[in-house]
Amino acid sequence: MSRAPSLQFFRKRRPPPGAHPGEIAHEPAAGPTRWRALHYDADGVDEIDEPTVEGLAALRERPGVLWIDVQGLGDGALVQQLGDALSLHPLAVADVFHPPQRPKTEPYPDFVFVVARTPLIRNDAPLRLEQLSLFYGKGWALTIQQEPGELLDSVRSHILGNRGVIRSEGADYLAYAVVDAAIDAYFPLLDALGDDLAELEDEALERPTKSVIRRNNRVRSSLLALHRVLLPQKEALHGLCRLEAPLVSDTVRLYLRDTADHCQQVADVIDSYREVVIGIAGTWASSVDNYANEVMRALTVVASLFIPLNFVAALYGMNFKYMPELDLPYGYPAVLAAMACVAAGMLIYFYRKGWLRRPEDEDE
Amino acid sequence: MSRAPSLQFFRKRRPPPGAHPGEIAHEPAAGPTRWRALHYDADGVDEIDEPTVEGLAALRERPGVLWIDVQGLGDGALVQQLGDALSLHPLAVADVFHPPQRPKTEPYPDFVFVVARTPLIRNDAPLRLEQLSLFYGKGWALTIQQEPGELLDSVRSHILGNRGVIRSEGADYLAYAVVDAAIDAYFPLLDALGDDLAELEDEALERPTKSVIRRNNRVRSSLLALHRVLLPQKEALHGLCRLEAPLVSDTVRLYLRDTADHCQQVADVIDSYREVVIGIAGTWASSVDNYANEVMRALTVVASLFIPLNFVAALYGMNFKYMPELDLPYGYPAVLAAMACVAAGMLIYFYRKGWLRRPEDEDE
Amino acid sequence: MSRAPSLQFFRKRRPPPGAHPGEIAHEPAAGPTRWRALHYDADGVDEIDEPTVEGLAALRERPGVLWIDVQGLGDGALVQQLGDALSLHPLAVADVFHPPQRPKTEPYPDFVFVVARTPLIRNDAPLRLEQLSLFYGKGWALTIQQEPGELLDSVRSHILGNRGVIRSEGADYLAYAVVDAAIDAYFPLLDALGDDLAELEDEALERPTKSVIRRNNRVRSSLLALHRVLLPQKEALHGLCRLEAPLVSDTVRLYLRDTADHCQQVADVIDSYREVVIGIAGTWASSVDNYANEVMRALTVVASLFIPLNFVAALYGMNFKYMPELDLPYGYPAVLAAMACVAAGMLIYFYRKGWLRRPEDEDE
Amino acid sequence: MSRAPSLQFFRKRRPPPGAHPGEIAHEPAAGPTRWRALHYDADGVDEIDEPTVEGLAALRERPGVLWIDVQGLGDGALVQQLGDALSLHPLAVADVFHPPQRPKTEPYPDFVFVVARTPLIRNDAPLRLEQLSLFYGKGWALTIQQEPGELLDSVRSHILGNRGVIRSEGADYLAYAVVDAAIDAYFPLLDALGDDLAELEDEALERPTKSVIRRNNRVRSSLLALHRVLLPQKEALHGLCRLEAPLVSDTVRLYLRDTADHCQQVADVIDSYREVVIGIAGTWASSVDNYANEVMRALTVVASLFIPLNFVAALYGMNFKYMPELDLPYGYPAVLAAMACVAAGMLIYFYRKGWLRRPEDEDE
Amino acid sequence: MSRAPSLQFFRKRRPPPGAHPGEIAHEPAAGPTRWRALHYDADGVDEIDEPTVEGLAALRERPGVLWIDVQGLGDGALVQQLGDALSLHPLAVADVFHPPQRPKTEPYPDFVFVVARTPLIRNDAPLRLEQLSLFYGKGWALTIQQEPGELLDSVRSHILGNRGVIRSEGADYLAYAVVDAAIDAYFPLLDALGDDLAELEDEALERPTKSVIRRNNRVRSSLLALHRVLLPQKEALHGLCRLEAPLVSDTVRLYLRDTADHCQQVADVIDSYREVVIGIAGTWASSVDNYANEVMRALTVVASLFIPLNFVAALYGMNFKYMPELDLPYGYPAVLAAMACVAAGMLIYFYRKGWLRRPEDEDE
Repeated sequence: MSRAPSLQFFRKRRPPPGAHPGEIAHEPAAGPTRWRALHYDADGVDEIDEPTVEGLAALRERPGVLWIDVQGLGDGALVQQLGDALSLHPLAVADVFHPPQRPKTEPYPDFVFVVARTPLIRNDAPLRLEQLSLFYGKGWALTIQQEPGELLDSVRSHILGNRGVIRSEGADYLAYAVVDAAIDAYFPLLDALGDDLAELEDEALERPTKSVIRRNNRVRSSLLALHRVLLPQKEALHGLCRLEAPLVSDTVRLYLRDTADHCQQVADVIDSYREVVIGIAGTWASSVDNYANEVMRALTVVASLFIPLNFVAALYGMNFKYMPELDLPYGYPAVLAAMACVAAGMLIYFYRKGWLRRPEDEDE
Repeated sequence: MSRAPSLQFFRKRRPPPGAHPGEIAHEPAAGPTRWRALHYDADGVDEIDEPTVEGLAALRERPGVLWIDVQGLGDGALVQQLGDALSLHPLAVADVFHPPQRPKTEPYPDFVFVVARTPLIRNDAPLRLEQLSLFYGKGWALTIQQEPGELLDSVRSHILGNRGVIRSEGADYLAYAVVDAAIDAYFPLLDALGDDLAELEDEALERPTKSVIRRNNRVRSSLLALHRVLLPQKEALHGLCRLEAPLVSDTVRLYLRDTADHCQQVADVIDSYREVVIGIAGTWASSVDNYANEVMRALTVVASLFIPLNFVAALYGMNFKYMPELDLPYGYPAVLAAMACVAAGMLIYFYRKGWLRRPEDEDE
Repeated sequence: MSRAPSLQFFRKRRPPPGAHPGEIAHEPAAGPTRWRALHYDADGVDEIDEPTVEGLAALRERPGVLWIDVQGLGDGALVQQLGDALSLHPLAVADVFHPPQRPKTEPYPDFVFVVARTPLIRNDAPLRLEQLSLFYGKGWALTIQQEPGELLDSVRSHILGNRGVIRSEGADYLAYAVVDAAIDAYFPLLDALGDDLAELEDEALERPTKSVIRRNNRVRSSLLALHRVLLPQKEALHGLCRLEAPLVSDTVRLYLRDTADHCQQVADVIDSYREVVIGIAGTWASSVDNYANEVMRALTVVASLFIPLNFVAALYGMNFKYMPELDLPYGYPAVLAAMACVAAGMLIYFYRKGWLRRPEDEDE
Repeated sequence: MSRAPSLQFFRKRRPPPGAHPGEIAHEPAAGPTRWRALHYDADGVDEIDEPTVEGLAALRERPGVLWIDVQGLGDGALVQQLGDALSLHPLAVADVFHPPQRPKTEPYPDFVFVVARTPLIRNDAPLRLEQLSLFYGKGWALTIQQEPGELLDSVRSHILGNRGVIRSEGADYLAYAVVDAAIDAYFPLLDALGDDLAELEDEALERPTKSVIRRNNRVRSSLLALHRVLLPQKEALHGLCRLEAPLVSDTVRLYLRDTADHCQQVADVIDSYREVVIGIAGTWASSVDNYANEVMRALTVVASLFIPLNFVAALYGMNFKYMPELDLPYGYPAVLAAMACVAAGMLIYFYRKGWLRRPEDEDE
Repeated sequence: MSRAPSLQFFRKRRPPPGAHPGEIAHEPAAGPTRWRALHYDADGVDEIDEPTVEGLAALRERPGVLWIDVQGLGDGALVQQLGDALSLHPLAVADVFHPPQRPKTEPYPDFVFVVARTPLIRNDAPLRLEQLSLFYGKGWALTIQQEPGELLDSVRSHILGNRGVIRSEGADYLAYAVVDAAIDAYFPLLDALGDDLAELEDEALERPTKSVIRRNNRVRSSLLALHRVLLPQKEALHGLCRLEAPLVSDTVRLYLRDTADHCQQVADVIDSYREVVIGIAGTWASSVDNYANEVMRALTVVASLFIPLNFVAALYGMNFKYMPELDLPYGYPAVLAAMACVAAGMLIYFYRKGWLRRPEDEDE
């Protein structure tokens, strides 16, 4: 049975039960790993595609900032090699390989480990939240994305094009730029969800089909997953803000406060959308009720009108020998007239009750 | 497809993805920008319409308070010029141009940055919440409204007319007067919403049409948006209260406490209205149920009354050769009498069950 | 359109927009103001009706406690005169005139300002919560009630009759006695609401009319208003408890803790009642559903019983020339017997389904 | 009108409005008061029934612990005498006489005052929560139960039988033993409520009568009352734990932590039961809906089957002179065959729709 | 009556009322107890099955870590003997015997007591949460499982196989390994619950039978029980993390933080599943409503179509002598044509209303 869409967010890759701590569950099916190193300072930039570990060691010696950008989890050995070279803690490296991790900021003595989650939007595909792992220390940063993608291209182009202040700041500013890119990726998603909700809100009122409730459920699941991710994301950003210099300088702290603000804005919109989703479900239910009432009213009007008339007709269809009315010359027209009167009376009663008005007339 | 009303609150203007921090998304369609400077002290007032930046620098030299009042975001260059002249942080200036920002109080070393949101009521237009940005430091304040409006006219007339104590106090009192005006603007909105709710409450009980639920949803969305804005607004006011002298003097702190009180009162009424909205939805649903029951009852009474009678009539409409009753001289009257008895019995049963009483009789 | 009852709690009197801080909205329609002064110490009591401001100044000189008791807001000038004489802050005095204020305790350097709310019960009138403003300092207290009433008569009689310890304690004990009287006034209201709820609970089960839901909504609104008042009331009492000596002595603090306890008990009962109200709405809805089911069942039984019989009768009412059964001598009795069998089978089926049992039989 | 069961928990005895603080509302109808004193140390026990106040004074002189156990509130004078002898604060003594008090721990300079609530289960009687008041100081403890009962018999038998460590510990251990007995009394109540809920859960699915919802409401009220009592009970226990030595020794603190654990376990089960109650209401509602659907389906099947057939029969019952079919020799059998075909088609359609399956068949 | 599944989680074993603190309720029916001791250090491992208490004392003398692993609560005397030998507090030992205890970390002067709960999954059996009690001090650890099982086999094999760092760390690392195994046991359970929910989500939309709601209720109960267990579990883990060295070394604290992370992830998934369960109930209810509407619509279409036609037929079945239409040669075909017109008009009306479309067509 195929997985229902609302449950896909909660599955986790993890090592087999009984593995010792720090053991890693490699996924052989993961795609290829792309990686490169960027070394920059105020004066210049060096970009090296897939350098050797010795090459990295040489780059770390030079002043400036070294950014190692790994995309894709296919090549586990590489990440472990990098982890050893940068003296990362094995538990932190293991977290890279077992997405989804809860977003968090973990300060270690020599480096900071940040886990963020970003939405991965592809046309017509359901929402996915990819894990972005970030390690940084004095003069270096290592970012590892779950899948190759364009998330950090804007950061790279700012460095290459020397736009903004990034080239004259340290690794903490680079870390800020990376998490800011991760948070910015939520805004197009919010717009897409907002369009879906606007459409569902209209349909729930006008055409309350089963499809509306199914799509509404799907949006609700996405919002729930986003809500669950953004709560710890905010905490992680505040944790980063609270770090002391030299891990986060005072200048960078102002920028991080701005990113935490954006994260809060995303969380606010998500929460508002969640209430909109509840409102759509309520509107749908009351539209369906209204529809059922209309059907019921039609049945009641027709049945209440004709059943008494039918009775009168059946009455004079009886075969008794002595039914004086049957022999009257004006019996038939008289009965027809009586029936018309009854029907008219019924219709006036129904009209007064408002059962003949069409539902559209009820709205101003 | 036109945007559904309940979603309009959550759209945000922001720079294109990949912009560097502090970059601003200018909106070419924004209307013209009006601005003026007011310099005052206990002895006098100078009002200058659209002064030059050099003129402002001269005014800042003089003792007293300089208030620069900018209305409309159309002229982005002006605001950035002012920001440079007053040494404002680029991230704070960027927030001015990307409404809606969450209300907040951000202390910088030399100035305080306050974001407030105020309702913009126009006849028959749906609710909008405009952003009011306020910067102030020693001897100066800069206010920037998202759109030209009369929000701060009362503050200006107090200064020009020397009413109250504003002329003998510093820039912190001016800041108080501005945020107080922003909060006061909520009270007429509360009255308007209260009138809408009173009307909806009556209609939900008396005429539960689809329009009631639609308008109720609209009010609910407005209340939700207000609720989401007032929570951080309160925090921002408390943050302002907590600032140390000289940013906020002890005298002004008492006034700000009063404004925080007003903000709390607005938030209380909003929360009460939200429960009223839930109550209206409940009343509506029970009115609709009642209505459906009434329709159902009518059908049941008519059908249960005539279907058995109809059966008796059909019975004696059969064409069997040997049906002795048909030949009895009193067969027809006897059957009519029997039918009347059955009908009377049914009516008495229905009456006892309470199915014949009109719903109005059920209320005392 | 008349104001719906559930909204009346949230209207507020306030100065016109644009008024300067501390400006007061006088209400010309407010009734007459009654006031008197009570000066007491362990040895004796002086009660003076509507003393002059000079007389009050003389009384303040003497040792002991001076209590000025103002009832009704009609005479704004008097209160402002008293405020000037006692050096009260204009913002605090303004709060007296703009009910409803949120209950609060505001310590000023020379006095304490307390706002409390008390229920005003009149027969058959809907619930109103009146504002009681209390100022007290060393050796004096000033109480201002929104409308003349008997709320503080018990405090006065304790002083006049020298009951309890009030005469030997200071102004802080008097302040305690006043807020204690304000909290005690809630208990009769709780009893009245409890009686209403007990009645509604029974009716919702036995006679679920529209009136029940309407009265239940009204009680819910009252409880909501009480809940919203009691939360800040508790905070205000705890704020009073936390004040340092000499504003609140250690002895009086024990008494205030007792009053805060009472306030908590009132809040607990209110919260319990709110859940009872939700339970009544649920019971009502399930009673209505049950009733609808009963109606539906009656229709189903009658229609399912007679429609098949009717068909058989109509069958033999057809006018075909060759219908051999019609000529059989026992055709008619045979058909009657067959109909009786069908009817009996149907009835047995309905009985087994439980559709013939009366709903009362279903309860043990 | 008799009090509805869900409201009985929220009535409170209190002095008449206007009483001075510490005044007591004696209830003349309260039953007789039983009391005794127990003096013990590691070496021996003395039990004295209804000793004189002088006798008590003598016992307090001796080393060891004196426990005065009062059962029933009928003899108010006795309690006040004891309060005077032990120098208890009048406000605390007043709380003894005005149940229900919120559970609390109030440290006074020379003694600790604890209010606990325990369930009083009698066969077939609705739940009552009795107040247990406990005062203890150095070398003495005073317990006052609202009604005579066996609650503290186990504590007494531990002392008399020298079981456990109670005889070698001080008055704080006795206080622990008393509150532990009060909390232990909740466990049998939890079992009884659990049995009720298990029964209701089954009935709601199988026989969703009105009685189920009524009994479920009653359990919900009991659970609500228990929830409201247990929250402050936990706080009171933690307050007791936090008291410094010598009021609570380190040894006794470990025991009190255990009791607080038990109280938390009771509160957890209560909260779980509250969710079970909500689940039962939901199950009931869906069972009733299912039942209504079944009734509706029966009506639809019968009516849709016979109404078209009836029409055909009525068609050939018309008395037109020129109806050629009527004269065909095989007209009648042909019509019967056509009717059978229509009926069979209908039945197949209904079967495909699943409207003929019995609801039991739908469950696996 | 058999216990309903949703209540089984809340039953607790406890000593009879009136037992003195620390008394233990032995359950004679409990199965046999298996136990063994493992002594290890970096150089080697000794495993001894059911050693004597003297043997244990000898092992404790040696450097390294001694792990005593007891499975099953049948042999109470053994546990009490061990408790005496290790100087455990009687209240802590009593907690071992009275499951379910709330998960907790209790530091005592010489040892730490941890209670954890782990799921016990057996095929087709409902969920059970077993209690795992852990005591550890310097150089030793004692684990007691409620029932024999394979929970700690992975820890044992890590020690025996010298995998990971466990052999070179102290008893605090062993304690970490044990609670980590307890938390890891939740992940397979989450997968099983996720599969159940995916199935229920599909069925609720496609085949909304009573069985779906019953199974959904069962999953909801399990999730509730898990939620209630995981909250204190997280607290217990954080409590363990907060312990000072030497109880928890800095190295082990990093590992415990990782376990607390896992526990949080489990709690997050549980909370997400709880919202999925609510969504399934909503989907089910709207599917049932849809189904009821479809049935109702079928009845309305059939009845509204044929009742008027039937009336016309009955009309011309009347036996009046003077009914001129009956004698017209084209009367019969004319009536048939009129009937066809009426029916066609009705069908067009129903089609326009959308009452003839099949519900599947409504979904895109």
